[in-house]
Amino acid sequence: MADTKMSKNTSPNEHSTKGAYVHAGEEYTRDTNYIEDRIVADPSAFADDAERDYWPVEANRYRLVAARACPWANRTLIARRLLGLEDVLSVGLPGPTHDIRSWTFDLDEGGVDPVLGIERLQEAYFARFPDYPRGITVPAIVDIESGAVVTNNFPQITEDFSKEWKQFHREGAPDLWPAELEDEMRDVMKRIYTEINNGVYRCGFAGSQETYEAAFERLWTALDWVEERLSTRRYLMGDHITEADIRLFTTLVRFDAVYYSHFKCGRQTLASMPNLWGYARDLFQTPGFGDTVDFQQIKEHYYIVHEDINPTQIVPAGPDLSGWLTPHGREALGGSPFDEAAGATAPGPVRESEKVTAGHNPMYPA
Amino acid sequence: MADTKMSKNTSPNEHSTKGAYVHAGEEYTRDTNYIEDRIVADPSAFADDAERDYWPVEANRYRLVAARACPWANRTLIARRLLGLEDVLSVGLPGPTHDIRSWTFDLDEGGVDPVLGIERLQEAYFARFPDYPRGITVPAIVDIESGAVVTNNFPQITEDFSKEWKQFHREGAPDLWPAELEDEMRDVMKRIYTEINNGVYRCGFAGSQETYEAAFERLWTALDWVEERLSTRRYLMGDHITEADIRLFTTLVRFDAVYYSHFKCGRQTLASMPNLWGYARDLFQTPGFGDTVDFQQIKEHYYIVHEDINPTQIVPAGPDLSGWLTPHGREALGGSPFDEAAGATAPGPVRESEKVTAGHNPMYPA
Repeated sequence: MADTKMSKNTSPNEHSTKGAYVHAGEEYTRDTNYIEDRIVADPSAFADDAERDYWPVEANRYRLVAARACPWANRTLIARRLLGLEDVLSVGLPGPTHDIRSWTFDLDEGGVDPVLGIERLQEAYFARFPDYPRGITVPAIVDIESGAVVTNNFPQITEDFSKEWKQFHREGAPDLWPAELEDEMRDVMKRIYTEINNGVYRCGFAGSQETYEAAFERLWTALDWVEERLSTRRYLMGDHITEADIRLFTTLVRFDAVYYSHFKCGRQTLASMPNLWGYARDLFQTPGFGDTVDFQQIKEHYYIVHEDINPTQIVPAGPDLSGWLTPHGREALGGSPFDEAAGATAPGPVRESEKVTAGHNPMYPA
Repeated sequence: MADTKMSKNTSPNEHSTKGAYVHAGEEYTRDTNYIEDRIVADPSAFADDAERDYWPVEANRYRLVAARACPWANRTLIARRLLGLEDVLSVGLPGPTHDIRSWTFDLDEGGVDPVLGIERLQEAYFARFPDYPRGITVPAIVDIESGAVVTNNFPQITEDFSKEWKQFHREGAPDLWPAELEDEMRDVMKRIYTEINNGVYRCGFAGSQETYEAAFERLWTALDWVEERLSTRRYLMGDHITEADIRLFTTLVRFDAVYYSHFKCGRQTLASMPNLWGYARDLFQTPGFGDTVDFQQIKEHYYIVHEDINPTQIVPAGPDLSGWLTPHGREALGGSPFDEAAGATAPGPVRESEKVTAGHNPMYPA
């Protein structure tokens, strides 16, 4: 194995398990050092890169570990559904809360992941690096035989799902990275990441009134930008869903349920932003998006894990979620979720074993 | 002085200063033991009551101490405005936050109330009872000469403003307690108090997930009831404003700014309840209501004082308040704020010295 880059940065990492989230007086800084190996169609094509290892795409060699609660992991669940990778890449689903050490497989029988045979995701990180010093994050892809984490580099994981796992895509899988849009997409996704996906955390984990207020302004500048952008485009990049939509969606779907109150992001609710609310519902109601969302796990994760901003650990009973299923009216802008002219279709139904718990999502009433 | 009843109950009292608000495992219980003296038009009429003392209504003998932040104190500020008692009952305004000992006059020059000459409201409680054991609450009415608290019994204070201070009411003062409605009003106000005014605290200070969820259900059962009631009535009791409206208003005006998030009351926002939102704006835009409201002080109070549920003490920048000034459309139900046929009129403008700080209320832009 190459000496995969690991920094000594120990900043808190929300989808990880490092402890205190708020540091008095400080702006929140995400630890963006990941295990940056990649899984690719042809590892020999990357022989020149000494920075990381390249693993071969292979059916049923790896297991994706992705807690439903986590927005970064949620991206991988959506991409896997849209591309139809369920048959070749199984998924392990840790519970919504974790302790200081690790995400755990507490929802599985006996508290053990049935494929990896471990209780704590930490074990797979230690199988890779016995002294792994950083947070134990999801999503992570684990090599089943060795039990070791291959990568937890979430933006690369979904990009590789689209570009490297092509031989295993379902018939009708959408092109989530259209070549002609890629440059613009990267700009849009960068701004969405720094200002929105991570922006809500910058509000929630601000260490002072001053850094919080600056974070709030930054977040809303960006939300106003996407609200405006979506006034004329059905999806972020135009007529069809792309990876950029997956990345914005996972923050939007958590906005009113968590970020509005818990992270103090609420200038207004998502439901009061006409374009963003229509857009978010359009995606939610598209197979592959809403069917991956477990609102109860999402709320439990944030409100129970971040004890330093919610010491009572009481999980709100609201908000009412029925609005997610109301007509969104976005058809009026033209476009369609999937580019039928290019042969793309919606993914089929969720497999029974991967259905979100009844009562945790308005699509699955209790 | 009679031995005014004081219990040894030390439950936390939100508009007081007693310390921890949440008690693990417990339902929130408000300390409802107050200094129950009254100020009345004719004390001799109550000579038979040995339970409390009766003080005479007198111009400029007393000072009302009422923090803008506090919903119970806010009632007194509204009633004083509607009835026009400003010329005979001056007001002291403690700042939004207080320490464990007392509300303080930190907004006044030198941190001293210019009339009472004290820094802490506690001093006026101690002037009355040197060993006063309970929380130092607002509103309180202080006898200026002795510097001692006469009463902090907030529901009685506003009732007496209407019924006992009549000789000092302004011309055109409304009848906030119409005799023919009083029985029904008392029932309505009782339910509003136990289920809504205090119900939001029952959510926010719940000591367990179970007591919180029960409190949330109770609150929303009552909010659904008033939402329905206000579908056919412009005001709670019919065509004109009564004391019942004052009591509901002070909770509604704080709902989206504080209770929704901080107290986890958010099944939905006030702004998404069509009748309640129209009703709340109708009142807000009526002289005597909105002009007493300082949203910044309200937010600072709750988010800074309740350190046990908001340990970072960061105060949210949201929500956007501009909606409070939008047309409410409640005229369609008929009625009017004040009963013109009975000679009632709106109060005049707020005196300059009592204006809410610019930027703290959308009526007074920064």
